Amino acid sequence: MDFVSSISGKSLEQFCANIFVSLGVQPDYAKIAARSVVEADLRGIRSHGILRFPIYIKRMELGLIESKAEPKVVSRKGAVSLFDGKHGMGQVTGYLAMQQAVASAKEYGIGAAGVYNSTHFGFLAYYSNIAAANGMIGMAFSNTTPLMAPTGGAQRVIGNNPISISVPYGGNGPVILDMACSTVALGKVQYAAQEGQEIPGGWGMDQNGHVTNNPQEVIDGGLLGPIGSYKGYGLAFIIEVLSGVLTGAGLGVGVRSLYQDLVNKQDTGHFMIALDVAPFMDKEQFYGRLTGFIKQMKTAKQVPGERIYIPGEIENDIFKEREEKGIPLTAKNIEALQELAAKYNLELPLA
Amino acid sequence: MDFVSSISGKSLEQFCANIFVSLGVQPDYAKIAARSVVEADLRGIRSHGILRFPIYIKRMELGLIESKAEPKVVSRKGAVSLFDGKHGMGQVTGYLAMQQAVASAKEYGIGAAGVYNSTHFGFLAYYSNIAAANGMIGMAFSNTTPLMAPTGGAQRVIGNNPISISVPYGGNGPVILDMACSTVALGKVQYAAQEGQEIPGGWGMDQNGHVTNNPQEVIDGGLLGPIGSYKGYGLAFIIEVLSGVLTGAGLGVGVRSLYQDLVNKQDTGHFMIALDVAPFMDKEQFYGRLTGFIKQMKTAKQVPGERIYIPGEIENDIFKEREEKGIPLTAKNIEALQELAAKYNLELPLA
Repeated sequence: MDFVSSISGKSLEQFCANIFVSLGVQPDYAKIAARSVVEADLRGIRSHGILRFPIYIKRMELGLIESKAEPKVVSRKGAVSLFDGKHGMGQVTGYLAMQQAVASAKEYGIGAAGVYNSTHFGFLAYYSNIAAANGMIGMAFSNTTPLMAPTGGAQRVIGNNPISISVPYGGNGPVILDMACSTVALGKVQYAAQEGQEIPGGWGMDQNGHVTNNPQEVIDGGLLGPIGSYKGYGLAFIIEVLSGVLTGAGLGVGVRSLYQDLVNKQDTGHFMIALDVAPFMDKEQFYGRLTGFIKQMKTAKQVPGERIYIPGEIENDIFKEREEKGIPLTAKNIEALQELAAKYNLELPLA
Repeated sequence: MDFVSSISGKSLEQFCANIFVSLGVQPDYAKIAARSVVEADLRGIRSHGILRFPIYIKRMELGLIESKAEPKVVSRKGAVSLFDGKHGMGQVTGYLAMQQAVASAKEYGIGAAGVYNSTHFGFLAYYSNIAAANGMIGMAFSNTTPLMAPTGGAQRVIGNNPISISVPYGGNGPVILDMACSTVALGKVQYAAQEGQEIPGGWGMDQNGHVTNNPQEVIDGGLLGPIGSYKGYGLAFIIEVLSGVLTGAGLGVGVRSLYQDLVNKQDTGHFMIALDVAPFMDKEQFYGRLTGFIKQMKTAKQVPGERIYIPGEIENDIFKEREEKGIPLTAKNIEALQELAAKYNLELPLA
């Protein structure tokens, strides 16, 4: 990747928040959404950071994301809640939903919250990490617009529905699994397309079901392959049940494409679970047991030339580095941000 | 597969329960465990049915499964509970734990239960299906003895930790995802070894990390490959956190092999979540939405010569057939059961 400049996380966050506010988003919500965009890039998840920011703005300009929406709890029973996202920014509703799940888990040991009428809400660990920051195991699920074929099928009808689970680990930063049910996330294919790179053969197929190295062919009508074949399809199916069927959100083709449908609102659905560690054991004991298991992984015989990582470790390391040195930007990133800066009469504070 | 005879589910269940009772298990617990064994075979999951029954009996004879154990709730807070399995049959503790999670979910909308001091407890959907039978989405997780290497590693240090999620679907039988984090479950490799069959190349490696078609080489010291590479490893890691770290059960090498360690108790850990559909929507509405999504899958363009299934559909169909016609048995199955029949002075009621 050819990086030509960089920007500090704080500056980029303020820049993004200012544009959201210009469009009518209330300042605290603008901050939540901007932080999600920036944190993705700080963690090295380029597929879900500023790469997505221009399309969020475009959809908001078109009224497909309601800038003034006020997400609302429409029902609550015991430890479970259901939110109507009112077609506002998914980042905000997702944040509020996980906070509610955490509040429920404080009271009952476990809590859950579903969301409908939402939108693409960035990288999933943003939400599961809220639970981890509260000493809880957080689970976040979302459906997406159809990107995969079911096993035995040759047509996009199911999302690559991501799942994220964060495990609190004190000062060591959470252990984080954040994955889509496809071999790769669509964002990685989009990033390759933006940067003019080829993709490996296993990432996807063109619209005729043939393996392709051209990322644009996968974006234009092809299929992402599910991990483990029918297992990845099955997991995506279940995540659709949690995020879509149970919440009342769009289902399959009812979840509109972030990029390709510029007429309808998305109606994405999410589901959050927070599970408190405290009722099971003292947190120091939990961290100690986690350390013991991590040690078993780290001291295992390694494949020569490779290294064994803990889920989320690579991103946690990148985060530390970028918090200090800023987020590197490609020429394409800068071009997209400059365009928005001009339109919204802002400075782009490059380092 | 060469089937030479068959046995009715009811007869096999009684046969297995009688042997458990002979060993000191109380009758209601014997029935729960026997039902798990038989239901696996009724559902066509041969890797987790009577194939495993002889080793359960052997471990019980050796005192490594405590036949008289009385699983106990050691802590409860709100909607979460922790069970000490007392090294009794995992099937019994798992059953009681999911029943408790269901009871909590009736009260709070969601409930969870962890288990430690447990044993190999058969096929996982047995537990998630308890929730589905109560109109709830059930999730069951378990750790296992180490069977996979972490990504970048060349040594077995992590289980292929299975997950099962069952979704209630009224008279159509639950939608069921039941999968291990490896490309295949070890039971499938063991079944191939017992029947003298070769295995496909992607299923596993020998103890030097080389791909092999010999199932015995995978059993003897090799590694099962995780689905989606680092994704399957990450998912297995998180399931170890839920089932092992959080519950206080054995971790990694601390979970002893069902077959290869005939000295120590297993100390397997499990985790259960039950999520009630009722607080989110009326069950008829939920089934209707599920039907709508299933229809999208079923009517998608198909790969010529293939068919699109819903998770659990194949097993649900086999179940209906075998409930009526009985469970087909190979000569090896019959030999193993006859040996136990002679030892425990019972008739093996073949059809």
